[in-house]
Amino acid sequence: MIKNITSTQNPLIKQLVLLKDKSRERKRREQFLIEGKRELSLAIKSGYKIRSLLFYPDLFSESEAKAMARYGIEIIEISKDVFQKLAHRETTEGVIALVESKSHQLEDLQLHAKNPLILVAEAPEKPGNIGALLRTADAANIDAVIITNPKSDLYNPNIIRSSVGCVFTTEIAMSSTEEAIQFLKKYSFNIFAAILQESEPYHKQDYTLPTAIVVGTEATGLTQEWRDASTKKINIPMQGIIDSMNVSVAAGILIFEAKRQRDFK
Amino acid sequence: MIKNITSTQNPLIKQLVLLKDKSRERKRREQFLIEGKRELSLAIKSGYKIRSLLFYPDLFSESEAKAMARYGIEIIEISKDVFQKLAHRETTEGVIALVESKSHQLEDLQLHAKNPLILVAEAPEKPGNIGALLRTADAANIDAVIITNPKSDLYNPNIIRSSVGCVFTTEIAMSSTEEAIQFLKKYSFNIFAAILQESEPYHKQDYTLPTAIVVGTEATGLTQEWRDASTKKINIPMQGIIDSMNVSVAAGILIFEAKRQRDFK
Repeated sequence: MIKNITSTQNPLIKQLVLLKDKSRERKRREQFLIEGKRELSLAIKSGYKIRSLLFYPDLFSESEAKAMARYGIEIIEISKDVFQKLAHRETTEGVIALVESKSHQLEDLQLHAKNPLILVAEAPEKPGNIGALLRTADAANIDAVIITNPKSDLYNPNIIRSSVGCVFTTEIAMSSTEEAIQFLKKYSFNIFAAILQESEPYHKQDYTLPTAIVVGTEATGLTQEWRDASTKKINIPMQGIIDSMNVSVAAGILIFEAKRQRDFK
Repeated sequence: MIKNITSTQNPLIKQLVLLKDKSRERKRREQFLIEGKRELSLAIKSGYKIRSLLFYPDLFSESEAKAMARYGIEIIEISKDVFQKLAHRETTEGVIALVESKSHQLEDLQLHAKNPLILVAEAPEKPGNIGALLRTADAANIDAVIITNPKSDLYNPNIIRSSVGCVFTTEIAMSSTEEAIQFLKKYSFNIFAAILQESEPYHKQDYTLPTAIVVGTEATGLTQEWRDASTKKINIPMQGIIDSMNVSVAAGILIFEAKRQRDFK
């Protein structure tokens, strides 16, 4: 028995619109929306609990929806009006899910490797940059990403989209800078803080022990707390005229130098 | 004697609006607009010829404008209406210039190094990615960037903006794929084509001879022409679940591995 909603004034639909648009609402309810088949599959595989699956039959078939119902998900058929009200993207696949948030506390992180490799991003701003960081984290299969002093919640539709679903496949914790430093020190991480001034070239360091690579914002760099807490301050030598690099590119260069030193094992 | 334009219907202003909005117009007239003091200074330092400098006196002082007139630039004071009509950004510094395009032919490239390092990007799509590529190229001080089968002209306001002016400081050529391959073969470059399939890990290669690193689009990768023409096909080992990486991050990792092997000399 499949429910059917055709009115954009339906209370559930109004609730879902709030979840799409408001970070505060996502935090308060510990729920968010996922749009698109690929992202939804990744979330299910990564253990996210789907509450309801809404599909617009012109774009997503009932049989596809039912196949997903194997996971015990409530299925709701929606009209074009309702779908357009809920959809964040211009091109999409006619499927939207109401999903339960995961906890992203530091103590939830699963670190099984003997010498873990972690990326820490302090207060990253643009969803596109966060998405690129998470794609790099997935590709390198690093042990975790810690976002300190986050400017946005993780389930912002633009982050889900620009991460192409890597937001679901990567171990992510969010915390204050202070908590992150305590955590890394407790587990004896070498902390490499990416800072242009008074720092050493990144490629002369050893990243084979438990390693945290810490990057700041493009505008202001890392806070003093990270400078003080770092095992080593490192830089990517800048030899140009402008000496400016996208933060996700810089993080990619540092992470893959660590991966190279570990021979991608 | 400073000219003054207060009407958005002024023929020059109408012309400038076209240059801001239309790639075709920029190509036809071989002119484009630069907005912002920093970008304009970089363009002047990089030898771009400024035709006219327009300033809105509430945001940019006449004395600053006159200081720039040392370079023999025509100065025009504009009204708020005219400024808002011309401005591309939301926050800006009240200065806009009409600038002559440079030629970006392969034969114009100045390659003085004994073992040049070049980045080739095939048909990059998003202005933000092109901007990030150019920032990386500037930071690494590589010898040139070649964009093949470009989807946009280089003087798109979004490219200028996202490159933070690196579009002016980097040697850039635009050409067809075929011409680029001919050029690289003529000058005996080793061509490393970034391709996931049937390729070797990037970190096991030697990038110390004349090197061209070639990256394709995120959606479709490199064309068969590049695969056939490459000295070596290389990949960044992907160990995640999604195995997707932002093209400017991938290019950054490859370029800085080459820089590392060259000890940043």
